[in-house]
Amino acid sequence: MDFAPSARALEYRNRVAEFIAAEIAPVEQVYAKQKQLPPEQWTVPPVVEALKQKARDSGLWNLFLPSPFAEATGQGPGLNNVDYAPCAELMGQYALAPEIFNCNAPDTGNAEVLLHYGSATQKQRWLEPLLQGNIRSAFCMTEPDVASSDATNMTATAVLDGDDVVINGQKWFSTGIGHPNCAFVIVMALTDPEADRHRRHSMVLVPMHTPGMDVKRMLSVFGMHDAPYGHGEVHFQNVRVPAANIIAGPGRGFEIAQGRLGPGRIHHCMRLIGLAERALSLALERSTTRTAFGKPLANLGGNRERIAEARIAINQARLHVLHTAWLLDNHGASGALSELSQIKASVPRMAQNVVDMAIQLHGAGGLTDDLPLAEAYTAARSLRLADGPDEVHLGVVSRIELAKHRHSQEPQHHDAT
Amino acid sequence: MDFAPSARALEYRNRVAEFIAAEIAPVEQVYAKQKQLPPEQWTVPPVVEALKQKARDSGLWNLFLPSPFAEATGQGPGLNNVDYAPCAELMGQYALAPEIFNCNAPDTGNAEVLLHYGSATQKQRWLEPLLQGNIRSAFCMTEPDVASSDATNMTATAVLDGDDVVINGQKWFSTGIGHPNCAFVIVMALTDPEADRHRRHSMVLVPMHTPGMDVKRMLSVFGMHDAPYGHGEVHFQNVRVPAANIIAGPGRGFEIAQGRLGPGRIHHCMRLIGLAERALSLALERSTTRTAFGKPLANLGGNRERIAEARIAINQARLHVLHTAWLLDNHGASGALSELSQIKASVPRMAQNVVDMAIQLHGAGGLTDDLPLAEAYTAARSLRLADGPDEVHLGVVSRIELAKHRHSQEPQHHDAT
Amino acid sequence: MDFAPSARALEYRNRVAEFIAAEIAPVEQVYAKQKQLPPEQWTVPPVVEALKQKARDSGLWNLFLPSPFAEATGQGPGLNNVDYAPCAELMGQYALAPEIFNCNAPDTGNAEVLLHYGSATQKQRWLEPLLQGNIRSAFCMTEPDVASSDATNMTATAVLDGDDVVINGQKWFSTGIGHPNCAFVIVMALTDPEADRHRRHSMVLVPMHTPGMDVKRMLSVFGMHDAPYGHGEVHFQNVRVPAANIIAGPGRGFEIAQGRLGPGRIHHCMRLIGLAERALSLALERSTTRTAFGKPLANLGGNRERIAEARIAINQARLHVLHTAWLLDNHGASGALSELSQIKASVPRMAQNVVDMAIQLHGAGGLTDDLPLAEAYTAARSLRLADGPDEVHLGVVSRIELAKHRHSQEPQHHDAT
Amino acid sequence: MDFAPSARALEYRNRVAEFIAAEIAPVEQVYAKQKQLPPEQWTVPPVVEALKQKARDSGLWNLFLPSPFAEATGQGPGLNNVDYAPCAELMGQYALAPEIFNCNAPDTGNAEVLLHYGSATQKQRWLEPLLQGNIRSAFCMTEPDVASSDATNMTATAVLDGDDVVINGQKWFSTGIGHPNCAFVIVMALTDPEADRHRRHSMVLVPMHTPGMDVKRMLSVFGMHDAPYGHGEVHFQNVRVPAANIIAGPGRGFEIAQGRLGPGRIHHCMRLIGLAERALSLALERSTTRTAFGKPLANLGGNRERIAEARIAINQARLHVLHTAWLLDNHGASGALSELSQIKASVPRMAQNVVDMAIQLHGAGGLTDDLPLAEAYTAARSLRLADGPDEVHLGVVSRIELAKHRHSQEPQHHDAT
Repeated sequence: MDFAPSARALEYRNRVAEFIAAEIAPVEQVYAKQKQLPPEQWTVPPVVEALKQKARDSGLWNLFLPSPFAEATGQGPGLNNVDYAPCAELMGQYALAPEIFNCNAPDTGNAEVLLHYGSATQKQRWLEPLLQGNIRSAFCMTEPDVASSDATNMTATAVLDGDDVVINGQKWFSTGIGHPNCAFVIVMALTDPEADRHRRHSMVLVPMHTPGMDVKRMLSVFGMHDAPYGHGEVHFQNVRVPAANIIAGPGRGFEIAQGRLGPGRIHHCMRLIGLAERALSLALERSTTRTAFGKPLANLGGNRERIAEARIAINQARLHVLHTAWLLDNHGASGALSELSQIKASVPRMAQNVVDMAIQLHGAGGLTDDLPLAEAYTAARSLRLADGPDEVHLGVVSRIELAKHRHSQEPQHHDAT
Repeated sequence: MDFAPSARALEYRNRVAEFIAAEIAPVEQVYAKQKQLPPEQWTVPPVVEALKQKARDSGLWNLFLPSPFAEATGQGPGLNNVDYAPCAELMGQYALAPEIFNCNAPDTGNAEVLLHYGSATQKQRWLEPLLQGNIRSAFCMTEPDVASSDATNMTATAVLDGDDVVINGQKWFSTGIGHPNCAFVIVMALTDPEADRHRRHSMVLVPMHTPGMDVKRMLSVFGMHDAPYGHGEVHFQNVRVPAANIIAGPGRGFEIAQGRLGPGRIHHCMRLIGLAERALSLALERSTTRTAFGKPLANLGGNRERIAEARIAINQARLHVLHTAWLLDNHGASGALSELSQIKASVPRMAQNVVDMAIQLHGAGGLTDDLPLAEAYTAARSLRLADGPDEVHLGVVSRIELAKHRHSQEPQHHDAT
Repeated sequence: MDFAPSARALEYRNRVAEFIAAEIAPVEQVYAKQKQLPPEQWTVPPVVEALKQKARDSGLWNLFLPSPFAEATGQGPGLNNVDYAPCAELMGQYALAPEIFNCNAPDTGNAEVLLHYGSATQKQRWLEPLLQGNIRSAFCMTEPDVASSDATNMTATAVLDGDDVVINGQKWFSTGIGHPNCAFVIVMALTDPEADRHRRHSMVLVPMHTPGMDVKRMLSVFGMHDAPYGHGEVHFQNVRVPAANIIAGPGRGFEIAQGRLGPGRIHHCMRLIGLAERALSLALERSTTRTAFGKPLANLGGNRERIAEARIAINQARLHVLHTAWLLDNHGASGALSELSQIKASVPRMAQNVVDMAIQLHGAGGLTDDLPLAEAYTAARSLRLADGPDEVHLGVVSRIELAKHRHSQEPQHHDAT
Repeated sequence: MDFAPSARALEYRNRVAEFIAAEIAPVEQVYAKQKQLPPEQWTVPPVVEALKQKARDSGLWNLFLPSPFAEATGQGPGLNNVDYAPCAELMGQYALAPEIFNCNAPDTGNAEVLLHYGSATQKQRWLEPLLQGNIRSAFCMTEPDVASSDATNMTATAVLDGDDVVINGQKWFSTGIGHPNCAFVIVMALTDPEADRHRRHSMVLVPMHTPGMDVKRMLSVFGMHDAPYGHGEVHFQNVRVPAANIIAGPGRGFEIAQGRLGPGRIHHCMRLIGLAERALSLALERSTTRTAFGKPLANLGGNRERIAEARIAINQARLHVLHTAWLLDNHGASGALSELSQIKASVPRMAQNVVDMAIQLHGAGGLTDDLPLAEAYTAARSLRLADGPDEVHLGVVSRIELAKHRHSQEPQHHDAT
């Protein structure tokens, strides 16, 4: 057992840290202005494209892409999850950082779908520009009218009609669909209601602005719109695309969704560690510089205990995420099934609590957008629902725990017979 | 001991309930549209003025105003705090309700300041239209640069200059200052830095748009602006008003602030009970109508326990608020000192938790403004800071507790000598 | 609504307080010595009988007995639940106090069973000496082998055989059965497995030492035996008593159990408020008299916040219990169904937390029997299981909540048709 | 970064697991009988000595002893902390296991003190039989009358008198002093009140039964005595031993105490992970085999969520402890200062909560000594106080956190000048 990061992990972590400190931290406020605008005015500030180019030139690009995809595409250094984790953590400290390094959701997940299941045409047409950072994408899964935590519930339809597939239905919380560069979405929809429960759905690649596809509105999350990405409500009315746009062919939607969500979930958790670290850092800054009742806040009431509890919670969560990453790297998704749900059910809550503490230390200012805390809170809170609510993940953990227990008891039962 | 509401309390409670169900609930969405607009476009929707008139005609107007002020002004039935509580609770269920009944903060607090300390001129010029609902007001207390939980910290200045008083400084979280009808503010500012610590500050009544007074921006709270009230950042630069605008004369600011905040705090808590009840009601609705994994949410995992815990927490908090109200009515603010801080430190957290639970049960939709939950969450969260952060109130409670303990030990010490 | 205690409540509360301060507090340590002895050596210290006589002579006897039973038996002042609550709270501060006032469980519950359902013979033979304090009793309900939170699960049998009833089975946690004066037990057992689910069981009065009845051992609770009461494991092997010992006749066990547990639960909660108050009082004493790192503990870290949180939690719980008592007094058990479960699910946890806090403030000494805290902790913790575990009571609360919600929705559904 | 245990760790872990399953689990009840006896009757059951011999013969002896002490003494395989952790975790599952492997507190800590600081004579006379398991020992540090969390507070005195040192004072919670084989204690006492604050105290080795040394009583912890080890209250009255018994010479007590507690704390935490695992295992067993309301407990209410939360909490705590062990191994105590306090402040609470959950699932039986849960609870609860209360460790963590923050800000301040 060795907790020392590899030389490679350390090198990339340090380079990302330097890049963020030198390039991203200073422009945080520029980007924040996007948040003030209504969705129809969202743009990509020039600084963003300049920084993307700089990150790319520095070799800090597509860091999320694991071997052998890195080799296959010639993109990114091919870090494994454990080595990527410290980089992703740092990116989690600034809302705009992931895009600068071309490591932002849902593009990373969509890229992995295309790498795993995409046709040569799809890869050339959509994956390549996505990995170049020339386009963005969205993922249309959640529906307003059904409990989307069970992917087999999806009611939007993708019906084959000759050489085409025709999509109807409503999706929402399609994150990233408001980005000016969003060029395509991947839609999960029902193709064959008679098939086996896990073979009914398909994933269809739909270019933005295909006729019949309508982004009705950007949903707010605690009043924020996560500009310039946004969470769209999208209606599909007889949206027709070639059947070749069905990724990996009809009926494989559930299979793809299962595979897609593992890395996405752990990436979210890695970034949340960074988010919580930044909140703690702001809390420390505030508690040492703000005075009340004649003392720095750090010396008032339970504030020091709260700081210590935050440090403990962050450290435990980070180790948990790193261990899960290591399991993914060494034993695959099936070897990390419980742990992926364990971190997904606990890390967002941890981050939510740490940010809430930091807000409280900041007083009213902590609630405003003068500080990144309210937005960070919203991000952490949302992730208690996105990609499966806490409760569903706790259910997975307990199911595995009960199965392990039954299994451990079996030899004894056997002995008894 | 008798937990039955008085006939009068019951009557007003029922009338308010009927009015809300018949008139306010149906127009909730109309008002909600204000929230989408930028501050400069905030208006008072016609329905609001119509409803105010209707509430007034129904005798459901200025219900907050206690005896003998009700008699003195001819406004409101003169309910005591215990009898007003159930009405205020109901008003807390709808963001627009308090204004309809002319019972919204900070106008109620400002009215009480003028009733207690205002000159005849001030009462005629400002209090009367305020109680008529013809104008609104704001309270400029919190400053961005000092820990405002200690009122003696205020650094804005109100310096006498001949017959005038000249105000300089910066305030923020001046709630209500964005309302189109806001006609005046009350500013807390430093007049005599040499005086005794509690005699240094004055409260000055400043008409809106007095030269030198500049509402720089509306602050967001978790991305929301609380339209059409808003939380303003206000700069005062050589703002000159007659010295007669100093309420009760120079140096009495701290004294007035102390008295002003007691009723304001309990009113907030009363409304938060209603807010939590509405969240629980939405949670119940969702948990019985939404199905996942083949069961209504109410039958999944720990959801029933969460519902029960919410019911317990709300009931305890309500009783706590009512008891505090009764102490206020029967023993005055000094007899309810600890309890006022007890509820202020605990009821917003309770409401925050219940709303968070209701959001979680609603999934992603709970985060949006399709439901009143995100806004309710923001309201509850803000009130853990507004009118004194939790920690300050816990400090008051423990200080009183320790003093009581020392006092209870004294006779024994005495015996021992 | 009136939170002032009645003159009668105040009078009895004060008299009980004086009696405890003058008579019981000083002998706490005498009684505590019983705790060191093995069960077979448990005795009633002479001081206890003397104090019982004194309490009786002072008219502080059977205070729990409500009207009209007080009148019928000529015992006790006939306080209602609201007026009894402050007395019971005070008794909860000292482990031996309830017995001194003849107000201890399970005798109070057994007395009520006999008052409600007992025959004239049973009343004369068993109830009278119980109310005189000449004998004690136990209640044999919980069984080790079934989930006893559902009373219909009981598997011990009480089979009619001619004029007799014959009992077989095993019970445990029969509290009070170790008391030297314990003269009878009431056993819940299965009489007719074919009857309707709620008509299968009977309650049988069995004199101690009836042949076939064997107290196998006293169970420890966190290593304590609650001397001289004890929690017995009792085996019944062909225990034969006259059929007339079946209380109210065969098949009424469930009905009696339901009625029996309501007052018992609220009495437990009343006493737990006192237990928590005593723990807080000890915490205050410790935090003002113990110094560490150069300061009294009260001025270190989060200790003041913990004191304030304890005060808030106790006050809320007390109001909750009083409100439930008032509902019981004014609307009967059926009008307090949810509230009885609400307090039973929350008050023991509150007390457990407050006592745990007080232990932590006391350091290692808090864990020993030099202080009443460890025993108090054990009492509170046990009551999260006794008379129904937290989870069962939360289930009751949510079931009622969901039913109320459905009911509240019905008129609207009706309107819609 | 590599989370795989070393081959050596795996081998020892498996051998310890097999030994425990084959030899210790079956005799748990034999040992438990000691707990029923009063201290004066405590013995070492013959099975214990037989098992110790067996463990020794199997090479599973003194596993705690790190290199190079293992080599120096020829005892134990010289595992580092990371490799020892899984073994210690397994030992934590059974109260008697640590002694069987000669790995129990406080002997391990005392052995390390003698290894680091002992004279040749002390090593031969006391360390050797200790490592052989022929004698046991105790550590007399905590005093009833002062806040012992600050070691400089100790008021017992160890005064030089010619060639002797004379000890006076009172100690308590001297764990292990009740063991029939306890042969010596190490006493922390004040030698030179005029010296620098950290040079005032000495550690003196005192053989049991030295005249003037009196074990007044065994303290109970929640009614339990932790037989046959016990927590003694010890009075020293003019206890005279040769000055050569002062370990490392006068005035080095504080220095030794600091070094002694690091490994002791992490060993406690390692064992608590095992304790929590065993509680979870019992909870799983109960929730799958006990039926209520027609379902296994696992399918009722929030029970599955509680199981999942326990799994998450244990896994996070284990990783935290392992990381701390790795820091100790690779960066020494000074490199693990914050982490040692982090785990000491959080792991006992985690264990307390998991055990409490397991008790609740077991109902009343969980409170008794029929199951190891009540004892486990007591162990976890005690460790929130032993070796420094939670609050002191949180204080250490926050102090380091604040110092790191100030340090991280310094370059920026520097830049600004």
